[in-house]
Amino acid sequence: MENTPVPIEVGPRDGLQNEAAQISTADKIAFIDRLSAARLPVIEVTAFVSPKWIPQMADAAEVLAGIARRPGTRYMALVPNPKGLERALAARIDIAAIFAATSETFSQRNINQSIDASFETYAGVARDALAAGLPVRGYLSTAFGCPFEGEVPVDRVVALSTRLLDLGCYEVAVSDTIGIAHPGQVRAVVGALIKVIPRDLIALHFHDTRGTALANVLAALELGIRTFDASAGGLGGCPYAPGASGNLATEDLLYMLQGLGAARDIDLDAIYAASTALEPRLGHPLPSRYVQARRATATRQSAARP
Amino acid sequence: MENTPVPIEVGPRDGLQNEAAQISTADKIAFIDRLSAARLPVIEVTAFVSPKWIPQMADAAEVLAGIARRPGTRYMALVPNPKGLERALAARIDIAAIFAATSETFSQRNINQSIDASFETYAGVARDALAAGLPVRGYLSTAFGCPFEGEVPVDRVVALSTRLLDLGCYEVAVSDTIGIAHPGQVRAVVGALIKVIPRDLIALHFHDTRGTALANVLAALELGIRTFDASAGGLGGCPYAPGASGNLATEDLLYMLQGLGAARDIDLDAIYAASTALEPRLGHPLPSRYVQARRATATRQSAARP
Repeated sequence: MENTPVPIEVGPRDGLQNEAAQISTADKIAFIDRLSAARLPVIEVTAFVSPKWIPQMADAAEVLAGIARRPGTRYMALVPNPKGLERALAARIDIAAIFAATSETFSQRNINQSIDASFETYAGVARDALAAGLPVRGYLSTAFGCPFEGEVPVDRVVALSTRLLDLGCYEVAVSDTIGIAHPGQVRAVVGALIKVIPRDLIALHFHDTRGTALANVLAALELGIRTFDASAGGLGGCPYAPGASGNLATEDLLYMLQGLGAARDIDLDAIYAASTALEPRLGHPLPSRYVQARRATATRQSAARP
Repeated sequence: MENTPVPIEVGPRDGLQNEAAQISTADKIAFIDRLSAARLPVIEVTAFVSPKWIPQMADAAEVLAGIARRPGTRYMALVPNPKGLERALAARIDIAAIFAATSETFSQRNINQSIDASFETYAGVARDALAAGLPVRGYLSTAFGCPFEGEVPVDRVVALSTRLLDLGCYEVAVSDTIGIAHPGQVRAVVGALIKVIPRDLIALHFHDTRGTALANVLAALELGIRTFDASAGGLGGCPYAPGASGNLATEDLLYMLQGLGAARDIDLDAIYAASTALEPRLGHPLPSRYVQARRATATRQSAARP
């Protein structure tokens, strides 16, 4: 969409959904308002899913009713089905997000549908959303590898990305769900995608599980990709838990992007303030390396090392 | 030196020197032998420094006497002064490393000498080492920023790197001591360096403090740099401690390099085995993201997320 690299903030939804602690509606609203103050262009704020399945998102309508909407920020929510769309429209979201997988096993376990069945559902959601004037964003999960099926053929990633765009999505977020991607793979997957899909319809969604997220962003930037999902504080993964697999932290992404001269209009200090204000509610320190380093710099000085 | 990217293993010295736990000589030897089995080309095994200052390295001679030397691996040690060189030569090291700083404050606090005084010392060490047939490697610390003085002028980095090479060093490891570098800065610093210094005399030494280390490596690879320091397991920084500032982990570096088709002759599994065998002696989990992810993969399966 923009020509300069931008972060898409997914902390309040993808991040919090994967935190063990229940966060109060008031805390979520305060968190989102602080993120808005940072001038982020898009914030994924909640999911209109069944509270039975994801109790953390049961207050979706209350969150959207409570936040102060900043002109210049668009508020996105995950909308998995027609019922969710109805609620989402009533709550006046700006963008609806739908969520497909590249592997049948992951699709079954994650959303209890085959890939084809999920696309049938999403076709209806996208049609009705667009008819109501609501832009739709597509996620394609496990695009760099599936925890159950392993390697995912690049052709399938291209085909399913195209299929999401064919539903009317303005953008597909090609997602490394298990944080396994490395720059060589980014070059292969993105290289194949941009042969058939315009670059500005492609976003990338990395997890920093193996420390490669920023290197992956750099590799993608060099291929002309400009949109990267990130989660304030690295929410969604706990550095103290085995299996921690946080989203790329918005602070870490911005530290790099701003070092490259991009995204300078976004207020990194305000994002740091938003994350660290929420941190006491999480039950663990934020995974963001930038946050950890910034905090440490205040307390520590040096060490004898190169 | 080589045309394909290579890691220089600094875990047994730079890593262990910055660990709080005292590691026994036997454990160090076992660790180094496992690293040798991984076919690493260079391992920095110890430092011939005063045990008064760095007790962790008091067993330098015993470590070198105890390891099984693998043909194809060269064993390096830090040698700060003539007395250290005498001990290092007796212990039959393959490479001597010397250690200068870019900032006067850091030089004073770290080695208790001005930059000029340290170069005077190193001139003697390098001359005598080379006369004894021992190659000398130079470290230049705080090259991307000083914890005391802040920004470091690029001109000074170029001048001091040149000065280390003028002492006879075959390579200078330009070091991001505080883990503050981002790819924009890597392009600026390395871009300036390669105008006056051949690329194959430049190594880079990153810490992953802000999660940028692999992105920095990628940026440097694209500028033709081929030599990167790394520490098995990410030794030297504890993820649970405020101010943790580990070296880039060898596993993380290799995961990326091998994904790019490089360094395939080095055995990543063997490095993982070396790190995880040492881990119980450290008192904290290894910081390496690759190690954490690999361990987690065995115990965890999935999560509902893009």
